[in-house]
Amino acid sequence: MEKINLKEKFLLFKEQWTPKIISGLNDQYIKLAKAEGEFVWHNHADEDELFFIVKGKLLIKFRDKDVELNEGEMIVIPKGVDHMPIAKEECCVMLIEPKSIKHTGEVKHEITKEDLEWI
Amino acid sequence: MEKINLKEKFLLFKEQWTPKIISGLNDQYIKLAKAEGEFVWHNHADEDELFFIVKGKLLIKFRDKDVELNEGEMIVIPKGVDHMPIAKEECCVMLIEPKSIKHTGEVKHEITKEDLEWI
Repeated sequence: MEKINLKEKFLLFKEQWTPKIISGLNDQYIKLAKAEGEFVWHNHADEDELFFIVKGKLLIKFRDKDVELNEGEMIVIPKGVDHMPIAKEECCVMLIEPKSIKHTGEVKHEITKEDLEWI
Repeated sequence: MEKINLKEKFLLFKEQWTPKIISGLNDQYIKLAKAEGEFVWHNHADEDELFFIVKGKLLIKFRDKDVELNEGEMIVIPKGVDHMPIAKEECCVMLIEPKSIKHTGEVKHEITKEDLEWI
């Protein structure tokens, strides 16, 4: 049971779109990810997903609107809602989502990651 | 489905040790609290609890050690672990914990809050 400094954790990896697990609580994982460029359209049929911006900006496209998240801002994307994150410049994001979640939902793409690493 | 700016939310209330619900995901609530002074020793028998420091510093006393959390730092307190938060000066904290959790666990105290408000 140790404290976690988010900025220090972000120094430990460089890969983009490759979430790293930093902790868990109840049946959720807390993950950190670096994002730059476009992800893929996907949804998670059974899982709500929280995005919290630690550094930079992240645009999240939905089918009916775009939401731009700045540092210190968050959004919860309900289960089943299509979304596509885009970052013009590298952005550092904390994710909270169930342990059962798949990276790109039922979409299989070259960007899809499985067996995420703990840092 | 709107974004949430944590610093703006903290401007909406002044009460200390009175968590406000700002969102939920899966079976968890996301809450904001202002802390100053000493809380009470308690634990949550069945729920892990995340503390993330948005502003200020929070000392969390455990039975065997103290952990000082600074801005941008977090800790997950596993179910069943006794803890007591203390803030010398007012501190702004984000909590993530199951919807079922009780504010001070099985401890009843004048500080205990029920029926938390959404902001």
